Amino acid sequence: MKIAVLGTGPVGQTIAAALSALGHQVVLGTRDPATTMARTEPGAFGTPAFPTWKQDHPDVDLATLADAVSRAELVVNATNGAGSLATLDAAGADALADKVILDLANTLDFSQGMPPSLLVSITDSLGEQIQRRFPRAKVVKALNTMNVSLMVDPMQLAGGDHTCFVSGDDESAKQTVVGLLTALGHRDIIDLGGIATARGAEMYLPLWLGLMSALGTPTFSIKVVR
Amino acid sequence: MKIAVLGTGPVGQTIAAALSALGHQVVLGTRDPATTMARTEPGAFGTPAFPTWKQDHPDVDLATLADAVSRAELVVNATNGAGSLATLDAAGADALADKVILDLANTLDFSQGMPPSLLVSITDSLGEQIQRRFPRAKVVKALNTMNVSLMVDPMQLAGGDHTCFVSGDDESAKQTVVGLLTALGHRDIIDLGGIATARGAEMYLPLWLGLMSALGTPTFSIKVVR
Repeated sequence: MKIAVLGTGPVGQTIAAALSALGHQVVLGTRDPATTMARTEPGAFGTPAFPTWKQDHPDVDLATLADAVSRAELVVNATNGAGSLATLDAAGADALADKVILDLANTLDFSQGMPPSLLVSITDSLGEQIQRRFPRAKVVKALNTMNVSLMVDPMQLAGGDHTCFVSGDDESAKQTVVGLLTALGHRDIIDLGGIATARGAEMYLPLWLGLMSALGTPTFSIKVVR
Repeated sequence: MKIAVLGTGPVGQTIAAALSALGHQVVLGTRDPATTMARTEPGAFGTPAFPTWKQDHPDVDLATLADAVSRAELVVNATNGAGSLATLDAAGADALADKVILDLANTLDFSQGMPPSLLVSITDSLGEQIQRRFPRAKVVKALNTMNVSLMVDPMQLAGGDHTCFVSGDDESAKQTVVGLLTALGHRDIIDLGGIATARGAEMYLPLWLGLMSALGTPTFSIKVVR
């Protein structure tokens, strides 16, 4: 499948590399590829500067947001949730029309320090905001309930025996995403329903942050026991 | 231990019966015991009218809120979260001073139908509200992340292999609650930290509601896989 990953930070890099390794044709979208390729500072969490990462991943292309999206069937929103709408706006509503948008972002606000607060209200979610802003796209919320290393390699924890969730209004878009998740190794995927159910998955984040603090690691997930 | 359970609905009844069965001296607190004993209508979820339940549980006493609290070392808030502060006010700040308050309520608002919305904001929680209103009490948030039948009988699901959380500012109060949870059969208890971490546990509720709808049963829980 042709996939655009929006966001060139550690999350975007990790997702792009994993989907490329599965055989998909992946292009990373960024506002200005020349600026991105001129970065010399290391990424967040001590990851290498973008050009170093790019050199190690020659199969992943780099393009403008609009170009990346227009080439793709599926678009992964791997940007910081606080800037996701602006990034998608820059890609353009026409380019996004009819595309599946896999939204894995959380609207965490780190501006007041740790722990971050959430920017969404309890009667809305980023997933719904994206769907409202781009009504012709097919938004599927997934994977936002776990660390990026578990998103792409769930088997590293308990043999993959933990749960991920999907929310979205378009059934075939959800099936496409479920197929990707399964290929990544996710074994327990619960369909919560329409995109409005993304609220539940996003409002889980404060508990996730509390658990990260209590456990001293981001490498954990939840299994829905039933 | 002497325990007051506030709330005579199905949650209060179930908690009171379970703690009494463990050998604790349990008193149910209600605004007006005579009115409660005169009830003839069945309870929520098809439970019997209160007097029938009371007849089947002679070891559980019934008293006014103030009387029940003043007799107890530990107070369980098993009222509807929307009315919890008013109920605790009626019990009285002096009676609650130095008591452990196990708060298992959720501030779900069913006034707009199903699914309910939450009354708390994303920068507060009922647990914190109770602690602020009764600064001399020792509030511990726990058990609000599961159905009442799992609160008192966790072993019915996966042999008890799922997680419950405690949040509270007072370490010895948390230890008291952890002792109770352990006696009820909870095997995996995570201490999230101070009472502010109750936000995470309370904000999990929209996901819980989404899961109840998706799974078609309230008899599920989450295991933190790490």
